[in-house]
Amino acid sequence: MIDLRSDTLTRPTDGMREAMARAEVGDDVYGEDPTVIALQERVAETFGHEAALFTPTGSMANVLAVASLVAPGQEVLCESSAHIARAELGAHGAISGITMRTWTHDRGQVDLPAIESMFAPDMGMYFVRTAAVSVENTHNFAGGAVLPIEDLQALRGWADSTGTKIHLDGARLWNAHVATGTSLADYGRVADVLAVCLSKGLGAPVGSLVVGSADAIDEARVRRKRMGGGMRQVGVLAAAGAYALDHHVERLADDHAHACLIGEALGLDPAMVDTNIVVVERPDAATFVARAAEEGVRISAVGPRAVRLVTHLDVSRADAERAAAVLSRLLDR
Amino acid sequence: MIDLRSDTLTRPTDGMREAMARAEVGDDVYGEDPTVIALQERVAETFGHEAALFTPTGSMANVLAVASLVAPGQEVLCESSAHIARAELGAHGAISGITMRTWTHDRGQVDLPAIESMFAPDMGMYFVRTAAVSVENTHNFAGGAVLPIEDLQALRGWADSTGTKIHLDGARLWNAHVATGTSLADYGRVADVLAVCLSKGLGAPVGSLVVGSADAIDEARVRRKRMGGGMRQVGVLAAAGAYALDHHVERLADDHAHACLIGEALGLDPAMVDTNIVVVERPDAATFVARAAEEGVRISAVGPRAVRLVTHLDVSRADAERAAAVLSRLLDR
Amino acid sequence: MIDLRSDTLTRPTDGMREAMARAEVGDDVYGEDPTVIALQERVAETFGHEAALFTPTGSMANVLAVASLVAPGQEVLCESSAHIARAELGAHGAISGITMRTWTHDRGQVDLPAIESMFAPDMGMYFVRTAAVSVENTHNFAGGAVLPIEDLQALRGWADSTGTKIHLDGARLWNAHVATGTSLADYGRVADVLAVCLSKGLGAPVGSLVVGSADAIDEARVRRKRMGGGMRQVGVLAAAGAYALDHHVERLADDHAHACLIGEALGLDPAMVDTNIVVVERPDAATFVARAAEEGVRISAVGPRAVRLVTHLDVSRADAERAAAVLSRLLDR
Amino acid sequence: MIDLRSDTLTRPTDGMREAMARAEVGDDVYGEDPTVIALQERVAETFGHEAALFTPTGSMANVLAVASLVAPGQEVLCESSAHIARAELGAHGAISGITMRTWTHDRGQVDLPAIESMFAPDMGMYFVRTAAVSVENTHNFAGGAVLPIEDLQALRGWADSTGTKIHLDGARLWNAHVATGTSLADYGRVADVLAVCLSKGLGAPVGSLVVGSADAIDEARVRRKRMGGGMRQVGVLAAAGAYALDHHVERLADDHAHACLIGEALGLDPAMVDTNIVVVERPDAATFVARAAEEGVRISAVGPRAVRLVTHLDVSRADAERAAAVLSRLLDR
Repeated sequence: MIDLRSDTLTRPTDGMREAMARAEVGDDVYGEDPTVIALQERVAETFGHEAALFTPTGSMANVLAVASLVAPGQEVLCESSAHIARAELGAHGAISGITMRTWTHDRGQVDLPAIESMFAPDMGMYFVRTAAVSVENTHNFAGGAVLPIEDLQALRGWADSTGTKIHLDGARLWNAHVATGTSLADYGRVADVLAVCLSKGLGAPVGSLVVGSADAIDEARVRRKRMGGGMRQVGVLAAAGAYALDHHVERLADDHAHACLIGEALGLDPAMVDTNIVVVERPDAATFVARAAEEGVRISAVGPRAVRLVTHLDVSRADAERAAAVLSRLLDR
Repeated sequence: MIDLRSDTLTRPTDGMREAMARAEVGDDVYGEDPTVIALQERVAETFGHEAALFTPTGSMANVLAVASLVAPGQEVLCESSAHIARAELGAHGAISGITMRTWTHDRGQVDLPAIESMFAPDMGMYFVRTAAVSVENTHNFAGGAVLPIEDLQALRGWADSTGTKIHLDGARLWNAHVATGTSLADYGRVADVLAVCLSKGLGAPVGSLVVGSADAIDEARVRRKRMGGGMRQVGVLAAAGAYALDHHVERLADDHAHACLIGEALGLDPAMVDTNIVVVERPDAATFVARAAEEGVRISAVGPRAVRLVTHLDVSRADAERAAAVLSRLLDR
Repeated sequence: MIDLRSDTLTRPTDGMREAMARAEVGDDVYGEDPTVIALQERVAETFGHEAALFTPTGSMANVLAVASLVAPGQEVLCESSAHIARAELGAHGAISGITMRTWTHDRGQVDLPAIESMFAPDMGMYFVRTAAVSVENTHNFAGGAVLPIEDLQALRGWADSTGTKIHLDGARLWNAHVATGTSLADYGRVADVLAVCLSKGLGAPVGSLVVGSADAIDEARVRRKRMGGGMRQVGVLAAAGAYALDHHVERLADDHAHACLIGEALGLDPAMVDTNIVVVERPDAATFVARAAEEGVRISAVGPRAVRLVTHLDVSRADAERAAAVLSRLLDR
Repeated sequence: MIDLRSDTLTRPTDGMREAMARAEVGDDVYGEDPTVIALQERVAETFGHEAALFTPTGSMANVLAVASLVAPGQEVLCESSAHIARAELGAHGAISGITMRTWTHDRGQVDLPAIESMFAPDMGMYFVRTAAVSVENTHNFAGGAVLPIEDLQALRGWADSTGTKIHLDGARLWNAHVATGTSLADYGRVADVLAVCLSKGLGAPVGSLVVGSADAIDEARVRRKRMGGGMRQVGVLAAAGAYALDHHVERLADDHAHACLIGEALGLDPAMVDTNIVVVERPDAATFVARAAEEGVRISAVGPRAVRLVTHLDVSRADAERAAAVLSRLLDR
């Protein structure tokens, strides 16, 4: 069975397991786990921010990140198929009490004119104010699309001119970095707060980080505890993350090549496969997914007419080729 | 001073005050106020629904209405300048825990293709589900635009086919009714739950109603109490509402004519002034508003580049003509 | 039928209706209703605070008042049968996100040793901090019991020494004032924020006020709008409140005498009937209530074994005597 | 340095690390991690319940557990120094919207008469209803006190008679089990939902479980995802938990003996040291804690006048003896 449902499926490698087994640990609620402290500092530095905070999931990282920028009763703008809108069970409303308004772009891109037209400045106490814009890079449900750094920089310029903050959902920011060569520091510069994930393409079993100013991270630490994310000897997980950063970043290029290979076999324009995700329109997504599984290829329906497949650490070139063959055959039926 | 900031500014007439002074009352928390009971039944019947509930404001009516259709963690879709998105201080997120996604239409219209493309069916427990679509008729920040009944009926058809509910923010639904001749019952038929308001064009001092099924209203009654909207001898307010329904509906046509007159003086296409609201783009809305006030005409900025004026019960034809003259002169500067 | 279920049942008198009919009004969301402004200033001054805000209900006043003192994730301490704990549908948790801990006193009194022992100072970011203590005077479910000013002053002293704030739920504070002769200013001095009500013993149909610092009231105004409490021509209600303050305060002494009369007939120690509420223990409260209704006296069950009756503006001495006769006869069965 | 601040400080042993390194894993969001599935089944069976769910922390387990029993606007009763009241940053109010009322017992015990007197049955839609009682065994801030099974069974009987649910915060339930010999199944029987923890005395680095009916756990799974607790290859953590259950349960008796030894040195009645926690009253807790640290013994202030020390896996008998000597010397000053 070739499993392309998600890059969250990756299993820790032997080297990673070894790193976990050797990790020096402490109680992170007391701020005493040396491995997680080192990882947090490393990641903060990578993105050029003051501080970072380890979280059990990317969803929690996003909730903490957005809440550090947007108060209850204020709003965040995002693309309408953003992960924060679609796949976090409404936590930004249900837990953080935040309002969301959305623009729509079929590749999940920044639409600055749309943002400018929706933007709600502080109009007095009876109007909802736009506190932040959230962007997702790469954009999961838009098929792993990269947001070009130029667009993010333009957004940053506009945001500065209006006093708006920027949240970057970087669950797969390393994929964008490897696909484009844009440095992580450059991505860091365009955002006030980032959420980045170690357990997707990077292959760690568990863990994400919120990255931002020292104040934002202090606040996130309190909220993390309230949400039940204040774990103890986190070093065993952070060690896997550090290992992933050491060994699994550059190899994302392989995943991208594999996705491209499959995308082409499915007749997609290669320009539509930026990274490790392929989204294909199918009239009946659920049936297509079921058939693929019968043929030994697991993929996902991410909408009634949208099928998604994701390459990752546990998918070899041979796997990708076989999946391409199986899926293109099914498409032809 | 001619006050065109809002139709919420109307003061009760002598006849309305007389009706309030004579109102038979009881304790509405105990469900014993005959005047409010009668009003609720009357309004429910007008819209062809089972029940209605009096609330202190249109904002509370909207919050109760949407919450009766959308659970925390689920989403409502609406146009991006809807009152529920922009002007209720984020209550749907902050109090009800609801997620919102938006489409944009500069006349606040139903965009069924956009809705269909954003629609999120029940995809399993990890995705936010679209529970309802909210539409606003007339649409305040789109300049009192009417949503054609055909569009609402098409939305109803789509909603039924997908199991989606419809909330109709009818704060100014009587204006739409008078402007189009569409019956209130026809409007009632396209919505699962409506919020309608007595204190805007209708001229009552205080009061709105949620209208829907008996179950939805029972639920709304509990939420109303929790939100602090369970008032006591509400009959004094309901009597004003009943008076307004008796005397102030047909006269909305005058407000529409006055708005049209002003809109034309400002160079607007009359097709852009459906009812009693005129929205004009101005590069610096705040300055324009200030200048108008100096000339004895009060209007509002509803965005950094949007000026709004609203005709109502306390604005005579002569007032409208004078306002038209003042504002068109300012525009020409 | 003599209705002793609650003093919320009072109907506006002719004089009050006349005052409402003549009230000068404006749009209070714009802060332009002269009658509500005057009432707010009058009530603020009465209690020696900077500002006050009109709300549709006492429940909303309490929610706004407590939320102005206690942030989400912090706690308020109160007596376990306080109205804020028992009768506001959990709004302080469900809407404000506040934690509550309680002490128990069968007369609803301040138990300073209990408060001191429960008090949680700021112990670092991982503990819930006690932000405020809430007291209710008179205490509804403790049978209208008065909290002696000396106890409140002692609480104030302790609160100042610990940086804790005090919320006074004064839904029936005028009853306490009339019963004890303690000035309203003295009550005002012991609290950081008060909620006071016009629609209980004072006999206005609708309305309460939050009273506190200018900052607290500014914040409450925003929250009031979010909760749907920002009504328009509120002067029609505020006029009733002002009338009540002019005409219905001193007469509360009659209600107290009537309650005492009934209490004595039921065999209660007169020391247990401080004001206008009588609470009697009955093994089966619901049955007793039903029987009393059959005999023409309506009372309430406020617990499985607690029956409550309340005297008010619409209960004459003759009514009280008849109710006393009926109820004491039922008790003897 | 002997670290007695908490039993959350334990570091994974070599054997535990080995088990983690060898763990078979899968993506637990997809329900495919065999190690976490096995652990969940094992723990559910141990307590005689249908299902269990792994969570990153005991705080999240408690929030999910209580929310499965108590809806927003309903209430949970608990002892006033319960972990859910004091140490979860108000999550039950701030996230779950739940009301809390409390009784006080200096040993954290079940006070059934207090519970009965506070109990609020369903009194109609305007009153807060008692949905659940929460008990904590052993009780952290009451010094690791055990709740006798007889008391829990009596509570169970009362709860059944009133339709009330019981939440058991069993963060240290294994300590109670070892201290008393009461079976875990017997503890399981008295609760509708339990939260149990692997990362305290049991010594796992991360992890707790919610235990209850299949329905409650299904619901908890959705809420866990919304709270950001849906981790991926959780087997690496679950393996540590399984190892702890195999190897670290019976040895809790050593921790208890060590705590007793220290307690006696501090002049405590041994009857006050039920398990592995010792709480001592000190006029200035913070200073005492600082002095102990200077002498190489780390302990915690858990209140302005309460000092807590906790024995655990990483504290040997020799450590305990030395800590006892140091602390008793400081006490004598």
